[in-house]
Amino acid sequence: MATPDIDRVISIVLEEVSALTRQGASQRCSCHALHAACCPTRVAPVLDAGASRLGLYATGGHAGDVASLIDHTLLRPDATRREIETLCREAVEFGFATVCVNPAWVAVCAALVRGSRVQVASVAGFPLGATTPDVKQYETRRALFDGAHEIDMVINVGALKSGDLHLVERDIEAVTSVCRECGALSKVIIEAALLTDEEKVTACTLAKAARADYVKTSTGFGPGGATVADVALMRRVVGEEMGVKAAGGVRDLTSAQAMVAAGATRIGASAGVRIVQESRKGAPA
Amino acid sequence: MATPDIDRVISIVLEEVSALTRQGASQRCSCHALHAACCPTRVAPVLDAGASRLGLYATGGHAGDVASLIDHTLLRPDATRREIETLCREAVEFGFATVCVNPAWVAVCAALVRGSRVQVASVAGFPLGATTPDVKQYETRRALFDGAHEIDMVINVGALKSGDLHLVERDIEAVTSVCRECGALSKVIIEAALLTDEEKVTACTLAKAARADYVKTSTGFGPGGATVADVALMRRVVGEEMGVKAAGGVRDLTSAQAMVAAGATRIGASAGVRIVQESRKGAPA
Repeated sequence: MATPDIDRVISIVLEEVSALTRQGASQRCSCHALHAACCPTRVAPVLDAGASRLGLYATGGHAGDVASLIDHTLLRPDATRREIETLCREAVEFGFATVCVNPAWVAVCAALVRGSRVQVASVAGFPLGATTPDVKQYETRRALFDGAHEIDMVINVGALKSGDLHLVERDIEAVTSVCRECGALSKVIIEAALLTDEEKVTACTLAKAARADYVKTSTGFGPGGATVADVALMRRVVGEEMGVKAAGGVRDLTSAQAMVAAGATRIGASAGVRIVQESRKGAPA
Repeated sequence: MATPDIDRVISIVLEEVSALTRQGASQRCSCHALHAACCPTRVAPVLDAGASRLGLYATGGHAGDVASLIDHTLLRPDATRREIETLCREAVEFGFATVCVNPAWVAVCAALVRGSRVQVASVAGFPLGATTPDVKQYETRRALFDGAHEIDMVINVGALKSGDLHLVERDIEAVTSVCRECGALSKVIIEAALLTDEEKVTACTLAKAARADYVKTSTGFGPGGATVADVALMRRVVGEEMGVKAAGGVRDLTSAQAMVAAGATRIGASAGVRIVQESRKGAPA
């Protein structure tokens, strides 16, 4: 990234951070620590558009096409071939957006979902994000070669916390550029539970600058999963044109609906079957 | 690996497993679930040799050159540059064997420890082990290029649990072959807490077949760390000519001594400074 670009990114970040800082405690909403403009219960006009488009409502029992929002996920290191086969079978049966698996299983999954509308998503630099940009890029190419259509990469959290924004951006770009080249979707996992609100804003801004398709809250292996507050913050930073994926701890329809109401356009969950079954029963809204 | 080699590996594994199985409950020692021959308190003649060579004794306050056994470790994804600098400074000051860091920090560490006897260790496929052999190999080459001298790779646990021993072996070999080519040490992390005893034996046997330099108990990110029983089992399977690294949860001198008495020849710890300070005080034996 050239120096003017870095300056531009930094100025955007500073603007976002100062916007957050300017809001006094009085302007923070009561439901969480963010300032009022980020509260999902207050930004309905903006966010309802997304939620409606997706056929999913935070209030009311109708869940619409909830399955098509879900990355049916199995990233446990000890997952067996039999479990991966079940995952793929369920994804085809319920019509999930993708199966999200570790790179070692991509080729197997691509063969198993062939002919269905289910895509294969995989991960790069997962879950620590602490490898080099070229390794993440190589891992991305390999997964795409094996049949993946979406890559969820983890940012270099240590570089972000050390203020090395150039490395963070170059690291994201290493993956997003290959995804663009191959017509695949890229998602940038910021591992929100490790970040301050300011760092979350910076991470999302850099993901947007690197032309990622999605920002994503969590790996599911960190100290915390998706929160409504984080999804709302991330949606505010990236605007309407990018996706936001809520992942980690989304275990039922109610949580999934809350995430979508806050601005999520994709849900990463291992509980996808339960979520869909609840939506079909018209269970808890 | 050719079919006769696979048959040979399988026959070694079956022999080890059947040796374990033949031992009745009556022959299991009282201190843990393994059979008596693996108990570190009973195999003193064999293991004392290793412990003595290393100048570290399970009984008695003398800790000898404990620092030279320790990989001074910082693998948290949110570790900052400042923390990495401190790690390197401590490693040089106390004379640890290596600093063990994520790939993104290898080049920085190599510059910081230059001129000292401290080496840089890094990781591949860490901590899930669920990427492909060529990605682990690329990551290894990159870390060696950046200045690492030792690579701790994680096995494909899912493949092991699915019975795909050929993939597990090929995956290990992808890393060990590059390490041999470059004169670097390779360590194979079996993530023991995810495995049955039979799977631990299989993993160690395959690591030995792939000519790894060490087997290592744990990543520190799994459901459990090093145990004395696991170290003893691993030492028994790999024999005298390979190293065994105990990592995960080794937080004081007493634990470190117990691991060495059980057969460990390297300790992975973030508490290295404390361990060395305890040894200098002649603290708890």
